[in-house]
Amino acid sequence: MTPTITAFERSPDRGRGLARDMRIRWTLEELGLPYQVRTLSFAELKQPPHLARNPFGQIPTYEDGQQTLFESGAIVLHLAETHPGLLPGDSHARMRAIAWMFAALNTVEPPVFERSLTEVLEREEPWHAQRAATLDQRVHWRLSELSRHLGDADWLDGDFSAGDLLMVTVLMRLERFGMVNDYPNLAAYMARATARPAYRRAFEAQLQTFLSGEAERDSTPRS
Amino acid sequence: MTPTITAFERSPDRGRGLARDMRIRWTLEELGLPYQVRTLSFAELKQPPHLARNPFGQIPTYEDGQQTLFESGAIVLHLAETHPGLLPGDSHARMRAIAWMFAALNTVEPPVFERSLTEVLEREEPWHAQRAATLDQRVHWRLSELSRHLGDADWLDGDFSAGDLLMVTVLMRLERFGMVNDYPNLAAYMARATARPAYRRAFEAQLQTFLSGEAERDSTPRS
Repeated sequence: MTPTITAFERSPDRGRGLARDMRIRWTLEELGLPYQVRTLSFAELKQPPHLARNPFGQIPTYEDGQQTLFESGAIVLHLAETHPGLLPGDSHARMRAIAWMFAALNTVEPPVFERSLTEVLEREEPWHAQRAATLDQRVHWRLSELSRHLGDADWLDGDFSAGDLLMVTVLMRLERFGMVNDYPNLAAYMARATARPAYRRAFEAQLQTFLSGEAERDSTPRS
Repeated sequence: MTPTITAFERSPDRGRGLARDMRIRWTLEELGLPYQVRTLSFAELKQPPHLARNPFGQIPTYEDGQQTLFESGAIVLHLAETHPGLLPGDSHARMRAIAWMFAALNTVEPPVFERSLTEVLEREEPWHAQRAATLDQRVHWRLSELSRHLGDADWLDGDFSAGDLLMVTVLMRLERFGMVNDYPNLAAYMARATARPAYRRAFEAQLQTFLSGEAERDSTPRS
């Protein structure tokens, strides 16, 4: 059965690929798996049918007729565990790749997400510049540690893994701030990851979803 | 070989059990596994021996002679995967428990941690009250969703799992703010979890580590 994932009907990033369904699309493309997408309005996210999929009313979710899952990290892990390609076979290397998945989501993403959120929620506040500078520092600590670890390697630990995939989707959120460019090896890491054919296919698919939503809106009388 | 975890030499929370080594101690106690603790000063966290364990220089880490791991979520998952007791045997229920692990760390912890961080970093700022109120709202959204999901169940999905364990350690950070008390079922959930003998043993152990560090400091000439 072709799995179904959920995504925003109209992505707030206007097709830049920052919404978390991108993680699942990219994973499915890396693994060569077909999928379909159910798009949801912001109102639908908080209604019972979707809350049954995800108690927090977020996207993405995953359904394949046997398993319904929420949390992008868990969905990527489930797919990577059940299909070859994104986790090493050796049990120790496998756990290290999983550690990088958690590092992406629990160590790197929180300050990156706060940095991005302050632009949305606090941009008009007189203290925005002060707070942005503090957050920049928190993000740079993480980026410098990540850059030191990566060194001149291609990927975080051996071959490209689900850990790299999640880390790259987290770092993409910094694109508008240009911070990654201060670390040439991280910029090259991002370029290497986003040049992967599976990434390109996933990016184009989420862009098409956004453009279809826009086209539909343009042809619908505004209420 | 008895595994070794790392913890702060002098926990900034003064023994309240909020540092992330508590997650690993509790997991090991639930699984009935002995362990030893290597305490590290803040300076030692950022030096090469520890950076080889964790590129971000954080605690906790885990070493058992075969596997060295960082990220509390990954360590809990590794232990729960290799010993019975914290993940269901059924593959679908197992993945749902893992989804709750990610929900604890990637959906609930970020706003909870920011709420706690603003008390440390921004308490003297004239805009602290405004920011605290915004963060309170973000935390309450998550708590109300969690409370609605939990209903009158004992645990988040079936039996107590690694997902509950991580969620409880995240919610503990809200204790000083009293927010959980607005949700009687979540307060009861916390009481149920922290009454578990394994939790009590883990809590006492981290408290003793803190008190030993204090005693050592009192008997050491200050430099």
